[in-house]
Amino acid sequence: MRPYVFVNLAMSADGKISTRERRQVKISGADDFKRVDEIKAGSDGIMVGIGTVMADDPSLTVKSPELKAARRARGEDEHPLRVVVDSMARTSPDADILCKGAGQRVVAVSAAAPAGRVEALREKAEVVVVGEKGVDLTLLMHELATRGVKRLMVEGGGTLIWGLFKAGLVDELITYIGSTVIGGVDAPTPADGEGFVREDEFPRLELAGVERVDDGVLLRWVVKKEE
Amino acid sequence: MRPYVFVNLAMSADGKISTRERRQVKISGADDFKRVDEIKAGSDGIMVGIGTVMADDPSLTVKSPELKAARRARGEDEHPLRVVVDSMARTSPDADILCKGAGQRVVAVSAAAPAGRVEALREKAEVVVVGEKGVDLTLLMHELATRGVKRLMVEGGGTLIWGLFKAGLVDELITYIGSTVIGGVDAPTPADGEGFVREDEFPRLELAGVERVDDGVLLRWVVKKEE
Ligand SMILES: NC(=O)c1ccc[n+]([C@@H]2O[C@H](COP(=O)([O-])OP(=O)(O)OC[C@H]3O[C@@H](n4cnc5c(N)ncnc54)[C@H](OP(=O)(O)O)[C@@H]3O)[C@@H](O)[C@H]2O)c1
Ligand SMILES: NC(=O)c1ccc[n+]([C@@H]2O[C@H](COP(=O)([O-])OP(=O)(O)OC[C@H]3O[C@@H](n4cnc5c(N)ncnc54)[C@H](OP(=O)(O)O)[C@@H]3O)[C@@H](O)[C@H]2O)c1
Repeated sequence: MRPYVFVNLAMSADGKISTRERRQVKISGADDFKRVDEIKAGSDGIMVGIGTVMADDPSLTVKSPELKAARRARGEDEHPLRVVVDSMARTSPDADILCKGAGQRVVAVSAAAPAGRVEALREKAEVVVVGEKGVDLTLLMHELATRGVKRLMVEGGGTLIWGLFKAGLVDELITYIGSTVIGGVDAPTPADGEGFVREDEFPRLELAGVERVDDGVLLRWVVKKEE
Repeated sequence: MRPYVFVNLAMSADGKISTRERRQVKISGADDFKRVDEIKAGSDGIMVGIGTVMADDPSLTVKSPELKAARRARGEDEHPLRVVVDSMARTSPDADILCKGAGQRVVAVSAAAPAGRVEALREKAEVVVVGEKGVDLTLLMHELATRGVKRLMVEGGGTLIWGLFKAGLVDELITYIGSTVIGGVDAPTPADGEGFVREDEFPRLELAGVERVDDGVLLRWVVKKEE
């Protein structure tokens, strides 16, 4: 049992989600911002890796007052359950994701995470221990499902997205492609990590939507299930 | 004076042009293959970096008999002028790009290239010395223009494409996005090299075309000129 997992990200025309300095950059525009807020508000949970928390300190809250009100009216928290994938419990207790906005948080750590940091995080979030050294993403998905997460949105970054593809846990990939070039052999991309090598291990996608949004284009890919 | 420069490449949905092992992979399909052959046949020159020559040993010839015949009928060589960007003259004299198919070749080297290797290459190609240590791409474009190259197609790889963007020499970027995920922090991307850092230095593009081709999508971006 696991949630429906969709990745949503913005990349430059040359496939970068940030600069080599890992500074957050504006890749999309106002319409895409609105779209992202809507799909976030329609999700039960939203996930990022610790790399993104440390680079961008995102709050991952729903921004629109109307969307927040609609969630409340449905009996939901204003913001979806926020999830950090963080083997060593490096998330700062002051991180925006733990402090801004009402709603539940899960920090997923491994058994190797230092007890002191885990205890400090327990003040702000539910800490779930899944995996020995790294976070076992398959186990984590199961834990999230038992907490009622049916639709999970993944924001990034590239290392976490790679881990999810590697584990066969992605159902849908939504990429906004912006009208700029970033470049850089060290700039983060939509799927980093080790990478696939053999063509028979590449995940295969089906193009489910192509749409011009702002000055760029939005692609929706559905991951094909193995036969 | 320089040619109109357009980059054409195929990338995975996560922005990779190859695997981390730099093995050539099939990203597009038969329709895209045909399209690429057509735009190649419509170009006066086609350029790659030495990294691509060493990784893929491409011939860069026009494949379709009809397109080759049409070029001959126009009084042109069967294949466009083939250009390798290769500071140290590392291109093997046996490389397919120098051996397969009729037509002219230019190997662009720097003044630092060893004389012995340069002499060996002169048997197979015109060797143009532009730049002290690396190839000066701006000077090279001028040299190509004086040889009648009005439309230049660039196939890659990512390091050369980065160099061209950095030097402000790209007019158009055509990306075919295929229905697969490759991943890998070390996999080549459409623009590698150093990368831009400040948003005001990012090249800005205008989306000139979006089209479904094979199982993926073809994007045509025109590079905006600085005001
Ligand atoms: N443009 C966009 O849409 C967008 C969205 C989000 C992020 N970003 C950018 O992405 C960059 C950050 O990406 P990132 O790749 O450095 O970090 P990340 O993907 O956010 O986090 C990766 C970290 O998660 C932890 N992790 C634990 N278990 C894992 C598992 N099973 N698989 C994968 N990761 C696991 C690892 O750290 P531990 O070993 O310490 O646990 C790993 O280094 C930033 O530059 C940010 O701006 C861009
Ligand atoms: N999917 C596609 O459409 C596609 C197309 C082409 C290539 N590829 C892939 O791309 C990979 C190769 O890319 P790559 O980045 O390693 O090599 P590359 O871009 O083909 O060649 C880069 C090399 O060109 C030379 N160079 C000389 N002057 C330069 C300048 N001013 N700016 C930039 N480069 C200059 C440098 O080597 P020196 O210093 O020795 O001169 C540099 O390392 C392969 O894996 C190949 O399969 C994919």
